[in-house]
Amino acid sequence: MDEVAVRLGIHELIGEYAERIDEDRLEEWPDLFTDPCRYLIISRANFAAGMRQGVMYAASRGMLLDRVFSLRRANIFEPHRYRHVVGPIRLKAVDDTVAVVYSNFLAVRIMHDGTTTLFASGLYQDRIDTSTIPFRFSERIVVLDSEKIDTLLAIPL
Amino acid sequence: MDEVAVRLGIHELIGEYAERIDEDRLEEWPDLFTDPCRYLIISRANFAAGMRQGVMYAASRGMLLDRVFSLRRANIFEPHRYRHVVGPIRLKAVDDTVAVVYSNFLAVRIMHDGTTTLFASGLYQDRIDTSTIPFRFSERIVVLDSEKIDTLLAIPL
Amino acid sequence: MDEVAVRLGIHELIGEYAERIDEDRLEEWPDLFTDPCRYLIISRANFAAGMRQGVMYAASRGMLLDRVFSLRRANIFEPHRYRHVVGPIRLKAVDDTVAVVYSNFLAVRIMHDGTTTLFASGLYQDRIDTSTIPFRFSERIVVLDSEKIDTLLAIPL
Repeated sequence: MDEVAVRLGIHELIGEYAERIDEDRLEEWPDLFTDPCRYLIISRANFAAGMRQGVMYAASRGMLLDRVFSLRRANIFEPHRYRHVVGPIRLKAVDDTVAVVYSNFLAVRIMHDGTTTLFASGLYQDRIDTSTIPFRFSERIVVLDSEKIDTLLAIPL
Repeated sequence: MDEVAVRLGIHELIGEYAERIDEDRLEEWPDLFTDPCRYLIISRANFAAGMRQGVMYAASRGMLLDRVFSLRRANIFEPHRYRHVVGPIRLKAVDDTVAVVYSNFLAVRIMHDGTTTLFASGLYQDRIDTSTIPFRFSERIVVLDSEKIDTLLAIPL
Repeated sequence: MDEVAVRLGIHELIGEYAERIDEDRLEEWPDLFTDPCRYLIISRANFAAGMRQGVMYAASRGMLLDRVFSLRRANIFEPHRYRHVVGPIRLKAVDDTVAVVYSNFLAVRIMHDGTTTLFASGLYQDRIDTSTIPFRFSERIVVLDSEKIDTLLAIPL
């Protein structure tokens, strides 16, 4: 597959990821990952310090789906949604089966009453399986710029 | 036309749309639509409830231009501008003449005194006429995440 | 080089620019420019009035690097970072050696304590040298939507 096709496929995957979360199609969100996979949300400071635990972690589609189920059951959070905007991708490495891709993102949070605030910013560090179509994330590390976010985090970013 | 060319043409159109609004070239904004067309700004809740009226609506270039003329005449609003940032596109369907495309957006509002606030977020749901170059919107539905915005909305989003 | 390759190279450059700043790899930031070059941050109002001085200016890689060195020495600013998100590019003109490209951007600022605020929005007006790979900026004019930002600006945008 040529680089153009790879880049367009990556774009589509990254866009689709944001859409499934933002449009509350969370049950379809794990399908964007390989199985097993690695999904991690972690602050920049902890990531730089070598920690790999983070504020959200999953190693399989099952764990991702569990996360969604808990979210659906838990009514402890004030209802809210996100809207992600992702910037240009940087293709860091690519071979026949995997692409390493970085992209910047902002996420705003919309509360049920319509209040909208800047919620999170950071860097997606992805390993994308390009050996089958559609592409899927074998790893998505969400490196958050701020540590203030942790206690508020319910929906994946 | 191959998919790559279609995607690049869509990118260009979506970028140009934001530029004409953000750079206050509003009189050139209707040219980005086919005639007739459909332009609608509506909240997510109302859209999901099946309403198709919204807070701004036009069915032709003439109606879009009328909107711009009223805006230019009306000095009731405190002068302000927007800056849009649009994320990756998702090509939902494509044939020889039309592409169905979704994209996320954020818009900030800059008041005359320089105060900048997060103004709106949402999803563009577009039908794009790809049968002539440059591409044009035959339909752009601006689905807003929040309902709080309505009374403030003067400039198209 | 065909237009697709040019567009992808531009995307990569614009993404890389944001990454080097946002990831605090400022010493590598001047390498993204030709030498000599032109780098200017200016408010929309001043730019429209024909001023070409702005709040930050450089005409060579050496000047860009000087800027970084002063920033590293100066401990007068509260530590902070940015996160840029850049929207779709518009290819305004292109020939064998140069591409004129516009893109919208938002930058949020993350203070050391994690406080995140919308910091700046504006339009990148770029002249990009496409005659060698990787592409480089021969000119990047950062037109800011607001004039309120000036006194706070330490890190390049």
